[in-house]
Amino acid sequence: MSDSRPIGIFDSGLGGLTVAKEIFRIMPREKILYLGDTARFPYGGRSPETIGTFAEQIARFLIPRDIKLLIVACNTASSVGLERVQKINHSMPVIGVVLPGAKASVMRTAEKKIGIIGTKATINAGAYTRAIADIDASIKTYGKPCPLFAPLVEEGLFDSDIARLVAQRYLYPLVDIGIDCLVLGCTHYPLLYEVIQETVGASIQLIDSALWTAKEAQDILLALDVLAPGSESEGIANSAFYATDLSPDFEKSAELFMGKKIPEVEMISLDELVACVKE
Amino acid sequence: MSDSRPIGIFDSGLGGLTVAKEIFRIMPREKILYLGDTARFPYGGRSPETIGTFAEQIARFLIPRDIKLLIVACNTASSVGLERVQKINHSMPVIGVVLPGAKASVMRTAEKKIGIIGTKATINAGAYTRAIADIDASIKTYGKPCPLFAPLVEEGLFDSDIARLVAQRYLYPLVDIGIDCLVLGCTHYPLLYEVIQETVGASIQLIDSALWTAKEAQDILLALDVLAPGSESEGIANSAFYATDLSPDFEKSAELFMGKKIPEVEMISLDELVACVKE
Repeated sequence: MSDSRPIGIFDSGLGGLTVAKEIFRIMPREKILYLGDTARFPYGGRSPETIGTFAEQIARFLIPRDIKLLIVACNTASSVGLERVQKINHSMPVIGVVLPGAKASVMRTAEKKIGIIGTKATINAGAYTRAIADIDASIKTYGKPCPLFAPLVEEGLFDSDIARLVAQRYLYPLVDIGIDCLVLGCTHYPLLYEVIQETVGASIQLIDSALWTAKEAQDILLALDVLAPGSESEGIANSAFYATDLSPDFEKSAELFMGKKIPEVEMISLDELVACVKE
Repeated sequence: MSDSRPIGIFDSGLGGLTVAKEIFRIMPREKILYLGDTARFPYGGRSPETIGTFAEQIARFLIPRDIKLLIVACNTASSVGLERVQKINHSMPVIGVVLPGAKASVMRTAEKKIGIIGTKATINAGAYTRAIADIDASIKTYGKPCPLFAPLVEEGLFDSDIARLVAQRYLYPLVDIGIDCLVLGCTHYPLLYEVIQETVGASIQLIDSALWTAKEAQDILLALDVLAPGSESEGIANSAFYATDLSPDFEKSAELFMGKKIPEVEMISLDELVACVKE
């Protein structure tokens, strides 16, 4: 049985568009309902309580909009607020980006030493570490917050001496520990892929959670038999994009993460999101 | 006549504590009511409309709390949202950090070429440029957004090769233009004072808006004859501090800007702020 309802995706900002991009790549018929909380981006330095509240507000906005699957495409919200989102409506499948990334890293490590980079909130929450330990408790994990990586990406400094110096500062300690696998635990980091790979060396495999989350979504839709119908491949044209703020850089930034222009974006005020929880 | 009511101060986060610090230094008897919007920090990349809304919400929270003066201690909110705040209650004196900083820079420039650094929103708004032109239209101004400076400060990288490289990237073009005065148009930047001074050279004077805003506040309180009474100098002990989020780094960060520990902080939810406008 096919199901033409969209997949709901949300992120603290526009980084989650990397997950949308992968979904359109492997399932081009799927429609997406995306919300980026650009008025409160970034989440990575905030408290778990506040991040959980923001995630719940957005989920309560998206879930009633007839979606068939909800993806928390923000590593920080997945690490801190996923359970809170999953409790809202038990019949709605909800996935984050942490478990798919954790699974992929477990399959790739030979030395059983995995590095995880992300925001302060993501690393402090230890969600990747717990997910990896649940699969194979003999694997050692090493988390490292990298708060300057996202601002570097936002500033477009992918290939620069500044990016290299920052990468060395964060990543050399992980290389010294002897990891053979590094999870890019923030949707911004794949845009620094080359600088990160150059810094850690070719023997360390990088895991992009966005890619594995799209595959996980595909597995779930297949298992539930709710893939989108038809033969057309214009899911993106029928998708809807919401944001809580439209900054002057919005379009440029969206294109950066999506790899192409996104259709028109509708602004949703924070008042409307806050009201979703109060109702 | 003396007036024991507090001075209200707000900022997008904790950077505005640099203004509070200067006020306690030059007027130690004054009490402050401070609100840092840490749940939505930073404002610098957001749209003017959203920044204005946030500023209005906070002002409507503070104004009814029996303050005698309101200081918008955030350069971004001062540049974009000051008029909106001033419209709320015409009998309340409201000042931002832009005009005091602009006045100070006009007094210091000999070459009549002033550089201004700040967030994207501050520089795009052009408020410093207009304020300077209103005083002396023959002065040329050169604005440069420096989005990586605040994250560097938040990460504690004051004296580092990374900070020096970033400073060179942003500031060398201003040096080449021949400015003789540089306005630090963001409350975070004074923490990079040494790196900035070293980068631009000793012949360029740096203007710290926080200091001049505290002096402006003193002038207003004197003119209105509403300085705090008494001989005690423990304004800080009788002050109140609010924030919209308490991240794990909160205390460390507050101490960074204040130069010492701040008294207990009370958390105010965003729901409460949003409700201030709806009432």
